Amino acid sequence: MKLDDKGLLIVISGPSGVGKGTVRKALFEREGHDLVYSISMTTRKPRQGETNGKEYYFVTKEEFEKNISEGKMLEYAEFVNNYYGTPLDKINEQLESGKEVVLEIEVQGAMQVKKKVKDAVFIFIAPPSMNALYSRLTNRGTETEKIIKERCEKAKREVGLANMYDYIVVNDEVSNAADKIIAIIRAEHARTKRTIDKYQKMLEVK
Amino acid sequence: MKLDDKGLLIVISGPSGVGKGTVRKALFEREGHDLVYSISMTTRKPRQGETNGKEYYFVTKEEFEKNISEGKMLEYAEFVNNYYGTPLDKINEQLESGKEVVLEIEVQGAMQVKKKVKDAVFIFIAPPSMNALYSRLTNRGTETEKIIKERCEKAKREVGLANMYDYIVVNDEVSNAADKIIAIIRAEHARTKRTIDKYQKMLEVK
Repeated sequence: MKLDDKGLLIVISGPSGVGKGTVRKALFEREGHDLVYSISMTTRKPRQGETNGKEYYFVTKEEFEKNISEGKMLEYAEFVNNYYGTPLDKINEQLESGKEVVLEIEVQGAMQVKKKVKDAVFIFIAPPSMNALYSRLTNRGTETEKIIKERCEKAKREVGLANMYDYIVVNDEVSNAADKIIAIIRAEHARTKRTIDKYQKMLEVK
Repeated sequence: MKLDDKGLLIVISGPSGVGKGTVRKALFEREGHDLVYSISMTTRKPRQGETNGKEYYFVTKEEFEKNISEGKMLEYAEFVNNYYGTPLDKINEQLESGKEVVLEIEVQGAMQVKKKVKDAVFIFIAPPSMNALYSRLTNRGTETEKIIKERCEKAKREVGLANMYDYIVVNDEVSNAADKIIAIIRAEHARTKRTIDKYQKMLEVK
């Protein structure tokens, strides 16, 4: 018996290069969970193999800024001269229908969601070491040296924000991290703050 | 990688008759978890098939009260003219060695643990309905009608204390309830308040 019918807003975040995307993909491969992925919007150019509406909604800077000014973004961040953000439409509808909505976003954006959605679940994906993180940022091979350096500095600041999250999950092994997130989602559904209203109604307790 | 080495103190509690014992037993049948059960002490007479040191430590009223006065009880409660309680010895030692220590105790006792052990995990086992609970209290068949009535009244007061717990798990199906508790234990180990110190040390973040 589930004491809460609504889905959870699950924020998966962490420093650039930590492997958020890989963990999120592994999470969605797990069966028996009603997860939906909130596709982000970005102004960066698609990488090879990326499709509009799949990995991201790819839009122009002007379109993105119009969405911001119209209050249509749950969160957004500027990152290496590009915007990344989460369009609000559909999210609430999906939550009401009982789906768990997963956001995979930058630390900057997660801090914005934290202000707006008090009952979201904030999961910080942590690297097993700073060297592991720097190595990933260096080896991606799609960026210039200047951008890599900026990223490393930013990542260092970002690891310092883990204390703002509800959970810290070390990405030492992707499947292990995904398992932990599944457990977190299951446990959060039983948390008293989410279940007490329906519990009291069910047992007619005042 | 685990960011906390210590085990958790897991308090499984709930109204009399809700089936805490059955859930706890199902929990211990799950594999891959380092759970230990803290055997309670009681002054009530052993039921048929119960053994001293297995289901309970069966002691006299005098012995129990000596333990209380010497500060050797983590919690205790008087219940239908008998004491029930948790002896302190071994618990801390087991937690330090990384074992999850499970207490299956009455609501009264859980409230005492809550005051003493801030980082314990409090799980309230809830009945699917008040009628299901009353029916269980009536059908146990080991008590007089007066005791059954007292129990029902007490159970009613106890269901009102669910809001004091971290989690509410409905015991509609025992294996389902046990699965949820396993998820809760796993999730709690990733909670930022339990992991932030080791995380900061690991990444040398200040």
